[in-house]
Amino acid sequence: MNRRRFLGAAAGLGAAALYPRGLAPQGTAWRSWRVNGARVNQHLSDLSRFGRNPQGGVSRVAFSPADVEGRAFVMELMRAAGLSVRVDPVGNILGRREGSLAGAPPILFGSHIDSVPEGGNYDGDVGSMSAIEVAHTLSDRSYPNRHPLDVVVWADEESGLTGSRGFVGDLSDEDLRTPGRDGVSLAEKIQRIGGNPLRIAEAKHGPGSVAAYIELHIEQGGILDQAGIQIGIVEGIVGINHYDITINGFANHAGTTPMDQRQNALLSAAELVLAVERIVRAEPGRQVGTVGRLLVKPGAPNVVPGEVALTVELRDLSMEKIEALWDRIYRELQTVTSKHGTTFRFAQQHSNVAALSDPHIREVIADAVANLGFTSQVMPSGAGHDAQDLAHICPMGMIFVPSVKGISHSPAELTRPEDVTNGANVLLQTVLRLDQA
Amino acid sequence: MNRRRFLGAAAGLGAAALYPRGLAPQGTAWRSWRVNGARVNQHLSDLSRFGRNPQGGVSRVAFSPADVEGRAFVMELMRAAGLSVRVDPVGNILGRREGSLAGAPPILFGSHIDSVPEGGNYDGDVGSMSAIEVAHTLSDRSYPNRHPLDVVVWADEESGLTGSRGFVGDLSDEDLRTPGRDGVSLAEKIQRIGGNPLRIAEAKHGPGSVAAYIELHIEQGGILDQAGIQIGIVEGIVGINHYDITINGFANHAGTTPMDQRQNALLSAAELVLAVERIVRAEPGRQVGTVGRLLVKPGAPNVVPGEVALTVELRDLSMEKIEALWDRIYRELQTVTSKHGTTFRFAQQHSNVAALSDPHIREVIADAVANLGFTSQVMPSGAGHDAQDLAHICPMGMIFVPSVKGISHSPAELTRPEDVTNGANVLLQTVLRLDQA
Repeated sequence: MNRRRFLGAAAGLGAAALYPRGLAPQGTAWRSWRVNGARVNQHLSDLSRFGRNPQGGVSRVAFSPADVEGRAFVMELMRAAGLSVRVDPVGNILGRREGSLAGAPPILFGSHIDSVPEGGNYDGDVGSMSAIEVAHTLSDRSYPNRHPLDVVVWADEESGLTGSRGFVGDLSDEDLRTPGRDGVSLAEKIQRIGGNPLRIAEAKHGPGSVAAYIELHIEQGGILDQAGIQIGIVEGIVGINHYDITINGFANHAGTTPMDQRQNALLSAAELVLAVERIVRAEPGRQVGTVGRLLVKPGAPNVVPGEVALTVELRDLSMEKIEALWDRIYRELQTVTSKHGTTFRFAQQHSNVAALSDPHIREVIADAVANLGFTSQVMPSGAGHDAQDLAHICPMGMIFVPSVKGISHSPAELTRPEDVTNGANVLLQTVLRLDQA
Repeated sequence: MNRRRFLGAAAGLGAAALYPRGLAPQGTAWRSWRVNGARVNQHLSDLSRFGRNPQGGVSRVAFSPADVEGRAFVMELMRAAGLSVRVDPVGNILGRREGSLAGAPPILFGSHIDSVPEGGNYDGDVGSMSAIEVAHTLSDRSYPNRHPLDVVVWADEESGLTGSRGFVGDLSDEDLRTPGRDGVSLAEKIQRIGGNPLRIAEAKHGPGSVAAYIELHIEQGGILDQAGIQIGIVEGIVGINHYDITINGFANHAGTTPMDQRQNALLSAAELVLAVERIVRAEPGRQVGTVGRLLVKPGAPNVVPGEVALTVELRDLSMEKIEALWDRIYRELQTVTSKHGTTFRFAQQHSNVAALSDPHIREVIADAVANLGFTSQVMPSGAGHDAQDLAHICPMGMIFVPSVKGISHSPAELTRPEDVTNGANVLLQTVLRLDQA
């Protein structure tokens, strides 16, 4: 583990360094402002009504009735927080608090409220409710923000970052027209949530049009929880390469085929599974590698496996490291197939390029964390987020709060109320610092 | 490989040793008798019409219309070979040639004509057509057999040796009543082919009621074909132990779960797959061990495998060896699960006890082979056969002919016409020797 703690003293950052122009509205009183922890946790609980599962958690799949109802609730909360609400052509919900500085680009912060099927109450929801809570706090304090502040709840994060892709101009006509697994096109679905697929181009934001994007999210892994650290400062969202590999041997009768006459595809596959683990762990760093799917054909107890189809997924902040790992795995694949008289073919399915957060924003978050007295750690995000799309058009930063036992995409997902409040306070103090910079 | 060749000189067996009573009807002229090779291969080709697949081979699943039609064809052939035909209460077809020796138990020989779905034209069919051909040859020669000779075509070999189990009294009421996967009971299916499930007990034969059972069959493996040997003399049908193993880890997000925080069930499973191979191959002998089914859950590219269910199947002529192999595999299972923080459970699903062929019958077959000038090898049968049931009530012997490339249970299954003829001649000469003993 490569952990760095950002404590105020160690980071050596102060208001003087952060606010070179010396503009600090209302003096430094805002430094003691805190969100209403009870309120944000209550809103989180209220939101969990929409799409609640019998066994706990929610199934609030994007574009479903539960999602539509949840979005209406979000818009009410935004209005109650003093925001003026609109839905952009992609279906993103934007709540604006106008700023005083003419022509200044907006500071954007938020997350999503759609879930995976049988998901939990925290993934996306913590960041969305906290962003609204930050706006509510600023409204309560009548804060005279300089930049426009835009609270955003992205459309359809879970099935492919639809809302943020549209926002940065990365949704093609084909993406919109092609029917999904349910036979319904994205265009039709976007209409269901109040978007306008015919005007999708108007949702697009180019580089420079946004001052910064900040997203608070649950970690979804167990690093913070296991280490007892309160806040994660995300250094970037990992890149992902996904390879589909098929190993072919020869299916034969398990009784009549002697051991030395077999071409057993599963032996090659088993060696590859262990090689992926060995190669990925062979060097320091936080890269991960996973064989998550592995299908054996024909799959009968009395037949020597003739074919194994499996996936290899590699993730790291460095695409070069991912490629280097794959080179080693590929060589191992050649070795373990020739060893057992099998053959292979592979296809790289897709590549998500790693998105680094902005170093200055990391420093601002670290300063806010230090000022709040929280422990923190710089860490990658192993999961994908809308923030990776925003990184294409503006400086981006992410704040993580702990997931108990690292469980996510499950009704058992849990982030403790105090951690929700902590995260919302870091978001508040980060937005305030950025607004005054 | 532990191969012994039985050649006449090496075996040192002659008529004097085999026929102590000196009874050799018709002198020794019968030693030069041969089957009609063209006829038996023509019948094999004729039989392949019933249930023929568009892509070759047959789907003549037991109790199907194709099976019923094939059985009618078999009965015609039996009658043409001079046999009197009956269907016993289990549905076995028996064609008798009466003998001259009062009270002598019958010599039984035959095989089956049902196939697996999308099977080949040789598994079972070669033995069935050859048995009828032997009877036809004896009829052509007006051979005055001493024992009654019963040509048998067993009902439903492929789904569980139904016919031979009923013949030896090993079919329970529950076996008959329980609906199969298709919802139809065995009792109802037996009626479809002319059996009588209410009188199943009458099909039962006790020890001593049959003089000998001989079955000619294709090897279904590649040992004879690879070595270029003409005949296999089966020393026994291997025993089979089948274990179902479930390994449990913890399914988690492949992006957010660091390598050292995973409980990856697939890592334990991969190590076990390789351990089974290593342990089974570690000592000399013809034992085989196979992991043929392996299911990974949840089976998504981006989720660390939380559960793997797999099968281990072990086969050998010695049940003691199978148990000793399992002991070693079980210890390895303990090691590889604790190593990766996973747990396991297992259940032994069933055990087929090994069935040895009769040493005297092996000698008789070896003498016939030697006299015919064929090369041969003593070998286990890795696949199950009706002969394993018959071993409970009478001396049993099996003759193998080569399967090209060892392919079986496939439309690509092939045994060359000359090998069919060779096998039928070994069967003829074996039956003649046994009848005169």
